[in-house]
Amino acid sequence: MNPRIVSLVEIKNVLNRFDPIPCIEEGFVIYSQGKVEVPPVGEMVFKDPPGDVHIKYGYIHDNDYYIIKIASGFYENVKLGLSSSNGLILVFKQKTGELAAILLDEAHLTNVRTAAAGAVAAKYLAPRNVQRIGIFGAGIQGRMQLTYLESITDCKDVIVWGIHQKELDAYREEMVSLGYRVQITMKSLEIASTCNLIITATPSETPLLSVDQIQRGTHITAMGSDTACKNELDTRILQKADIVVADSLDQSLFRGEIYKAVQAGVLKRDAIRELGNVIQEKELQRKSEEQITVADLTGVAVQYIQISKAVVKALNI
Amino acid sequence: MNPRIVSLVEIKNVLNRFDPIPCIEEGFVIYSQGKVEVPPVGEMVFKDPPGDVHIKYGYIHDNDYYIIKIASGFYENVKLGLSSSNGLILVFKQKTGELAAILLDEAHLTNVRTAAAGAVAAKYLAPRNVQRIGIFGAGIQGRMQLTYLESITDCKDVIVWGIHQKELDAYREEMVSLGYRVQITMKSLEIASTCNLIITATPSETPLLSVDQIQRGTHITAMGSDTACKNELDTRILQKADIVVADSLDQSLFRGEIYKAVQAGVLKRDAIRELGNVIQEKELQRKSEEQITVADLTGVAVQYIQISKAVVKALNI
Repeated sequence: MNPRIVSLVEIKNVLNRFDPIPCIEEGFVIYSQGKVEVPPVGEMVFKDPPGDVHIKYGYIHDNDYYIIKIASGFYENVKLGLSSSNGLILVFKQKTGELAAILLDEAHLTNVRTAAAGAVAAKYLAPRNVQRIGIFGAGIQGRMQLTYLESITDCKDVIVWGIHQKELDAYREEMVSLGYRVQITMKSLEIASTCNLIITATPSETPLLSVDQIQRGTHITAMGSDTACKNELDTRILQKADIVVADSLDQSLFRGEIYKAVQAGVLKRDAIRELGNVIQEKELQRKSEEQITVADLTGVAVQYIQISKAVVKALNI
Repeated sequence: MNPRIVSLVEIKNVLNRFDPIPCIEEGFVIYSQGKVEVPPVGEMVFKDPPGDVHIKYGYIHDNDYYIIKIASGFYENVKLGLSSSNGLILVFKQKTGELAAILLDEAHLTNVRTAAAGAVAAKYLAPRNVQRIGIFGAGIQGRMQLTYLESITDCKDVIVWGIHQKELDAYREEMVSLGYRVQITMKSLEIASTCNLIITATPSETPLLSVDQIQRGTHITAMGSDTACKNELDTRILQKADIVVADSLDQSLFRGEIYKAVQAGVLKRDAIRELGNVIQEKELQRKSEEQITVADLTGVAVQYIQISKAVVKALNI
């Protein structure tokens, strides 16, 4: 056994050599076709200092690899000058069990697959004519969600919402240097009134947007909410929307925006469309520039399976 | 994150620098004290070609590390000239989640922890005067169980049972070169009639020893049976035994020899002693050269936690 050990630097390099968006898009289709096996997540929780570890694993039927992904969050690491999140991905050959590669990605591939999923959602649901892009959250995903939209829309006008002036200033500086025209704000209304493509990328537990703020023709991708507690959208936005899409129907009934709306009784289960089906069936995609659409992304295992496979392939492992 | 990648060669080297037996012994004590956390095992099963993957993980409370161990068996690998078993162990820091080491042990540490457990059982349960050692199974464990007894008994007389002449010849040649006097046999009776320390290390699903063959004063360690189907001992041997010991009381009720005997109604749950308690309490150990004792080892997660910690420590990671 002689696995290839791949550092974060090497992973970032190889990500310049292929486009993760079609690879993630293909993953959603395969997932909705029922070809992905995802056993229950393994968990360890520590109390002192507080930390949690998640072991996610799975594979696509009759494929080259199976994947085991380990990620941890130890929130007091910051005091020690260390990153709070750690992670790696193990890629094994599905026909022999041999370990092909160890991707020491430090959670970067999770960021990439999340940003790529946002781009896929926008590709099939955003209005053709994007006037301005509104981003909630000035963190890593607030940046990556924007840059990953580059191949989906020509729009370079952006307004970003945050709660810290310093963070917003840093965001603006960085994104302006990449060619965007960036306005910063601490008022959510300013986003809803000027943008028809909105991405929420915060850990908020109370809604950032209310239903009366949303204009006709707007598409919203909510990707911050991946637990039963987090909540970025007023549930009535999902009630009002013409199209509501989940990355995983099964998961969306237990976490995120759709979970909240179904619980509140304003959204019916059979009204929800799954992203893999939306990609495949034109009937399920946006039909006019007037429709309001919402995509709720909670993160699906097939995404890290696809991105890991793509990295391994690009490195000729 | 800059984990130390440790090859099998390096692992084998470092194992010459410390004794795994006390480290495994300490593990059983910690386990019986209830200080080990072991979540349910993760599993993936493949059909074509057939293969299975197990993810075991756990930690000792308030300790330096947590461990994730991945092992697979792909039984058609032999056709490709590859080992059917693959495995590695990941060692993470319990206070920060940082990956400290990747032990590419290819299942070797599982062999070591199993052999060391056999030595611990013999240390507390074997008669003082070992006349001859009987080994069932001429495979890797049949070898390692014997060599790991070196620090427990001076006895160098061995008889080994197997089902393939070639395998038995190879076993004899190798063990004679290590200074043992080795007889080989295909008849189990020859073992029971001449040995008072017997180790069963086979994947047998039918008993290898019957109750009337066992002499007074014999200790038997059954370590081959780690599932509900495998079975190396006539259940009446456990009925007749003065002392029956499990590495894990909980596990022994679902797999191995004790499971079979409890199912058959010849052994009561409250008669079973746990190895970690036997180590700590002299009252629970062998009391005379006449007693018949049985240790049933099914394998406990604390063993790979302990052996991995010891390797990491010995390498100054």
